[in-house]
Amino acid sequence: MRVLILGGDGYLGWPTAMALSEAGYDVALVDNYFRRNACVERDLPPIFPLLTLHERVALWQQLTGRSIQVTIGDITNFDLLERVFQTFKPEAVIDYAEQPSAPYSMLGPREAHFTVRNNLCGTLNLIHAVKRHAPDCHIIKLGTMGEYGTPNIDIEEGWLEVEHKGRREKFLYPRQAGSLYHTTKIQDTDMLWFYVRTWGMRVTDLMQGPVYGMITPQIRRDDRLATCTNYDEIFGTVLNRFLVQAVVGMPLTVYGKGQQTRGYLNLIDTIACIRLAIDHPAAAGELRIMNQFTETMSVNEIAARVCQAAGQMGLNPTVNHLVNPRKEAEEHYYNPTHNKLTALGLQPHLLTDAVLMEQLAFIQRYRARIRDDIILPRTTWA
Amino acid sequence: MRVLILGGDGYLGWPTAMALSEAGYDVALVDNYFRRNACVERDLPPIFPLLTLHERVALWQQLTGRSIQVTIGDITNFDLLERVFQTFKPEAVIDYAEQPSAPYSMLGPREAHFTVRNNLCGTLNLIHAVKRHAPDCHIIKLGTMGEYGTPNIDIEEGWLEVEHKGRREKFLYPRQAGSLYHTTKIQDTDMLWFYVRTWGMRVTDLMQGPVYGMITPQIRRDDRLATCTNYDEIFGTVLNRFLVQAVVGMPLTVYGKGQQTRGYLNLIDTIACIRLAIDHPAAAGELRIMNQFTETMSVNEIAARVCQAAGQMGLNPTVNHLVNPRKEAEEHYYNPTHNKLTALGLQPHLLTDAVLMEQLAFIQRYRARIRDDIILPRTTWA
Repeated sequence: MRVLILGGDGYLGWPTAMALSEAGYDVALVDNYFRRNACVERDLPPIFPLLTLHERVALWQQLTGRSIQVTIGDITNFDLLERVFQTFKPEAVIDYAEQPSAPYSMLGPREAHFTVRNNLCGTLNLIHAVKRHAPDCHIIKLGTMGEYGTPNIDIEEGWLEVEHKGRREKFLYPRQAGSLYHTTKIQDTDMLWFYVRTWGMRVTDLMQGPVYGMITPQIRRDDRLATCTNYDEIFGTVLNRFLVQAVVGMPLTVYGKGQQTRGYLNLIDTIACIRLAIDHPAAAGELRIMNQFTETMSVNEIAARVCQAAGQMGLNPTVNHLVNPRKEAEEHYYNPTHNKLTALGLQPHLLTDAVLMEQLAFIQRYRARIRDDIILPRTTWA
Repeated sequence: MRVLILGGDGYLGWPTAMALSEAGYDVALVDNYFRRNACVERDLPPIFPLLTLHERVALWQQLTGRSIQVTIGDITNFDLLERVFQTFKPEAVIDYAEQPSAPYSMLGPREAHFTVRNNLCGTLNLIHAVKRHAPDCHIIKLGTMGEYGTPNIDIEEGWLEVEHKGRREKFLYPRQAGSLYHTTKIQDTDMLWFYVRTWGMRVTDLMQGPVYGMITPQIRRDDRLATCTNYDEIFGTVLNRFLVQAVVGMPLTVYGKGQQTRGYLNLIDTIACIRLAIDHPAAAGELRIMNQFTETMSVNEIAARVCQAAGQMGLNPTVNHLVNPRKEAEEHYYNPTHNKLTALGLQPHLLTDAVLMEQLAFIQRYRARIRDDIILPRTTWA
């Protein structure tokens, strides 16, 4: 099956590409190098040194004999995306091509504008390219659990049945997110739902929780296949940041009270979910929404687990509560459903000591690259 | 009070500007001439000849002694919008600066892209300009009743209380619209709601139904003050189109069964609602949503009323049902609330024979300009 991955150079895109290639899918990648360039421009180097995408793909071919196509370009350019569709003729497309950082989206008007234009015009062009060149192609869109926010009622999988004044209707589950980035994902959902109804497209929207981890079977083969893993205040995410802090002997920085609870998953489970979605496509005219995480944890619990695993390796991190740079509820109800991916066959890899220790050991090999001056939050929601 | 009108050259923007200027507000306008240019490029002339915006403002000053500031430029350019805020220092801003046509947004990928970029980056820049230069400024945003679509439950004013599994939450009323244009208004709402919560902004979102009419007290003064009124398949709207068809002796073209029901209002009531919103601003941190229409009617009812009024003027239009170019429910439940503007003091001008006959007589004076070849729908949702 021909699978096109938009954002194929990113933290999720590249490991997904290798996993699918190894599993026998025919894979093509598009990436505009936004993340790489932003990391260079803002002096926020990732943990591991990165080959260019062309070099990565050449190395992958050398190691496995499998080829992956690469286009460096921007999907907000419709002509470019059309050419990719015309030549590759994808049967499924995975859209990771979004500006993925909440703090980046809050930096200022220019970064906000970039986030909106990149994320929404990219999704829109994808929809139009599918309609015009591959109407049966299955779009797999990465949403986020953050779209739901932290409502006072249970979070269902994408939809909510409402009874009101004696009448009933089923709606998209109401969404209200905690950053502009997360809000663009809501806006993506609005747009996809409109076109699914109007054009009968096949769309899967994966409402993903924060992903952690940097090791997949393919990356274990050769460090040079490592994925772009950030730990800085802009592109880093909480669990990976804690791992880096544990390695360099910095206190783990919990924002605010640390009782913020979210659904998390391991990078390898993200890839497994993507593969389940590809292998079980949405029907024509279906917007299938699945909540993609394996366990809910508070930030305090994550910090405690990292401390416990690090302790077994002779590291002894402490925990430091910072003034929360974000505007978010620090104590809240949180009870999200997540049955659909399990029903498709997902076998979760939970956050065990062994998982944490393997990541810590990997980071330790690159300890000399870690810059402790880029970790603490400077971008606020104020 | 200093009121900035974005989209001040448009069908609603220009009459609003004159009405506010006459009422003593200090008015400044920004417009990128999108609508004018698109009408020229697509050869879709409006009913009345139009002076440029600079000429209109000069004529207005000559007739009334009141000045209105004009900036021709694009609010998706943040630098331009910043300069306007720095010099004019608005206390209220009315955002009419959106690509307003549902069919235009469905023409193809480039028009879709323009609609998304123009509408969302414009709103985003407005939010950032207010935050940076006029944090107490009241944003009055034109939403649309079309955001709600036609759900099977009553439509409330912006918000819905939900009880689910024994717990309660209040959400934005779930929205699902019938065109990409309408969907961008939903996306605007998502974005405004995020920034209202995060930055404590003052926002009024007016969920406006289709507006009809082309006559205000200011326009009665001099035809050269007429507003940009289209009747073509792209920029025309249903009631104004029927009036033009009645004048030129074409059948009134009802799309599909004609049982599609919406809430309508007269142009002069739109202006009255805007003024009520300005004079009663939203609180800091409030997203105030008001449903803005005065009466609900089906397309068939509108056609019947136009036929009746036209008959009294010796015109005898017939009604022709066309295959619906849009994808929309032609039979549906529709019970929207609209109490908030009435509570603020709105006194509706309903669709009477007298109202219709005054519009018909105005159009008759420009009958020679009407082009019957641009009226029938060619743009489909397919």
